[in-house]
Amino acid sequence: MFELLKKEGRARLGRFETPHGVVQTPVFMNVGTQAAIKGGLDANDLKKLGCQIELSNTYHLHVRPGDELIRDLGGLHRFMRWDGPILTDSGGFQIFSLAELRSIREEGVQFHSHVDGRKIFMSPEKSIRIQSNLGSDIAMAFDECVKIPSPREYVEASCRRTARWLRRCRDELSSIREQGTGTNPGQVLFGINQGAVFHDIRISHMKEIAELELDGYAIGGLAVGETHQEMYDTIEAVEEYMPADRPRYLMGVGTPTNIIESVYRGVDFFDCVMPARNGRHGHLFTWGGVLNIKNEKYLRDDGPIDPECSCPVCANYSRAYLRHLFKAEEMLALRFAVTHNLFFYNTLMERIRGALAEGTFASFREKYSELLGKRI
Amino acid sequence: MFELLKKEGRARLGRFETPHGVVQTPVFMNVGTQAAIKGGLDANDLKKLGCQIELSNTYHLHVRPGDELIRDLGGLHRFMRWDGPILTDSGGFQIFSLAELRSIREEGVQFHSHVDGRKIFMSPEKSIRIQSNLGSDIAMAFDECVKIPSPREYVEASCRRTARWLRRCRDELSSIREQGTGTNPGQVLFGINQGAVFHDIRISHMKEIAELELDGYAIGGLAVGETHQEMYDTIEAVEEYMPADRPRYLMGVGTPTNIIESVYRGVDFFDCVMPARNGRHGHLFTWGGVLNIKNEKYLRDDGPIDPECSCPVCANYSRAYLRHLFKAEEMLALRFAVTHNLFFYNTLMERIRGALAEGTFASFREKYSELLGKRI
Repeated sequence: MFELLKKEGRARLGRFETPHGVVQTPVFMNVGTQAAIKGGLDANDLKKLGCQIELSNTYHLHVRPGDELIRDLGGLHRFMRWDGPILTDSGGFQIFSLAELRSIREEGVQFHSHVDGRKIFMSPEKSIRIQSNLGSDIAMAFDECVKIPSPREYVEASCRRTARWLRRCRDELSSIREQGTGTNPGQVLFGINQGAVFHDIRISHMKEIAELELDGYAIGGLAVGETHQEMYDTIEAVEEYMPADRPRYLMGVGTPTNIIESVYRGVDFFDCVMPARNGRHGHLFTWGGVLNIKNEKYLRDDGPIDPECSCPVCANYSRAYLRHLFKAEEMLALRFAVTHNLFFYNTLMERIRGALAEGTFASFREKYSELLGKRI
Repeated sequence: MFELLKKEGRARLGRFETPHGVVQTPVFMNVGTQAAIKGGLDANDLKKLGCQIELSNTYHLHVRPGDELIRDLGGLHRFMRWDGPILTDSGGFQIFSLAELRSIREEGVQFHSHVDGRKIFMSPEKSIRIQSNLGSDIAMAFDECVKIPSPREYVEASCRRTARWLRRCRDELSSIREQGTGTNPGQVLFGINQGAVFHDIRISHMKEIAELELDGYAIGGLAVGETHQEMYDTIEAVEEYMPADRPRYLMGVGTPTNIIESVYRGVDFFDCVMPARNGRHGHLFTWGGVLNIKNEKYLRDDGPIDPECSCPVCANYSRAYLRHLFKAEEMLALRFAVTHNLFFYNTLMERIRGALAEGTFASFREKYSELLGKRI
């Protein structure tokens, strides 16, 4: 399903087929955790912003409104009226970051919902059944996302369990496929590599899960507190053990700089809440760096957020108006900020793909990798 | 500028020309107090929702971002990228409802900003200069909005002062016109009738201000605590003293029922925060009554909010999805609710105009006046 079209160094240009269309890689998945994009954007807006694939969350949707309800209403695509590809995160990350009073056993994890405190049990099988009900195109394996730092012994034991859980995920999806009970018969499974920043554990775990010949592999458990350099080093260490003919997904990453640097190191898929979260604080990405629209200097600025940008906000509205909306705490401020930032991220990926196609990614990286992180 | 096209009883079908286009009446003005529509809607959305005329607020925009800034950036139309007609409220209502530590003198009102507490002085001349800077098509007179109930003596004295203030508003606008310093040379002034629910005071005040031959007249100071019947009775009492060849604007009103009943009594212009405010609470207007989308019964409801509605939300999304968005506290819930409710209000006015054009307003009123207020 994944086709590697071209390489420049380790950076890869590719395409990935899903039941809801082809994804051109490298790609940034636009995050709609609870089946909705932050900032009040809807599925129709996503199309206009160049989104190729949407990401929603197993844990959140299981808690509210419930995956069986979504299945009964035709699945997540129909529920949120997004007819493009969808990836669902397995809930692992959220259970280990949001939920309280966890108890981890071989069978799965017992925890309390962050919404109403009710007890929930999540296992590899249950996560896959939920994702099958949602009907995403790509289901993610249920894993333990280990904190950084964690003792080496804990990480090793956790990775062994995560590998056992992965087999159970695969088996559960196979059995759903055989029974024909899934919402999306073409749904595939991506495995997740863990191991904190211990390169040898990352590598042995990666080798083990590569044997399952899944449709894609993610690097999980990064961007959780380690330095950027530690993250890049870990990607470099594990990348060569990832199957070359499968897409690689770096979970929860990151800044434009992080993305460029990770594409450079062989990553194909990304997702991050940053365009929305930073947008809500008035931090807007531009091709000259990051600006804070609340800054006094934009008070009378009649120009667009970014003269190089052709998003619906830059095409129509001024910095002065957007600054006013932020100062007046109007919801429209958030919608405009998220619209602009998501368009920026999707355009960034488009330009990265363009550079890879032309064999000019090295100079693209040289020009933009630092620049896009600059505060202006 | 106002043309009365047809009457049915006291109800009127008309058209009002402004420098930014013709307004078909009866009309509901869509409220964008701070130069932004609540719920994250932008000027482009307003167009799609059938909005004919937008309403912004003198007091709010004077406080933030400042009317001189808006003038310097080309006026309010350009600032918010809305090229249709705009009416600006004078700030009177907000000063008497929001601001603290008011002192009212003949010259004007001293008060403290609700945003940062700074002292502001507002007079008829200043309100008009602010509205001239904003460049709205219709400026409203600066008046005192009297509380209901208030002692008769206070209301009489206040109305006399409001009438004197109206002359000062008119003179200030004339002088700006002569000097050619306004942002919108075609800007006109509407006077405001006050008098609480004392019919005789309303009538004598109306007679007095009618002599100024302004381009339109509003009924202010209603929908501030009196009963609906008192409001209707007051409209009926004063209506016959309002110039027939000028539009009548009932300020801050109201529910669909209020609007139908007031059109029936000869009113042409309306505005209200209700479509947005009620929308934020999940109360959605339909042609069968008002529903609360948070209600349990919509949990699995795959139908649109209103099968009779062709708004962008009803055309695409289900009640179940919208209910989920409300429960999950997603901003998209508010955008959808406000979108639907504003479309409903604009369609209501369109259907009222259609009924008036066909001479069937009486049966329209009979069918819908109560029905649209029913909780379903």
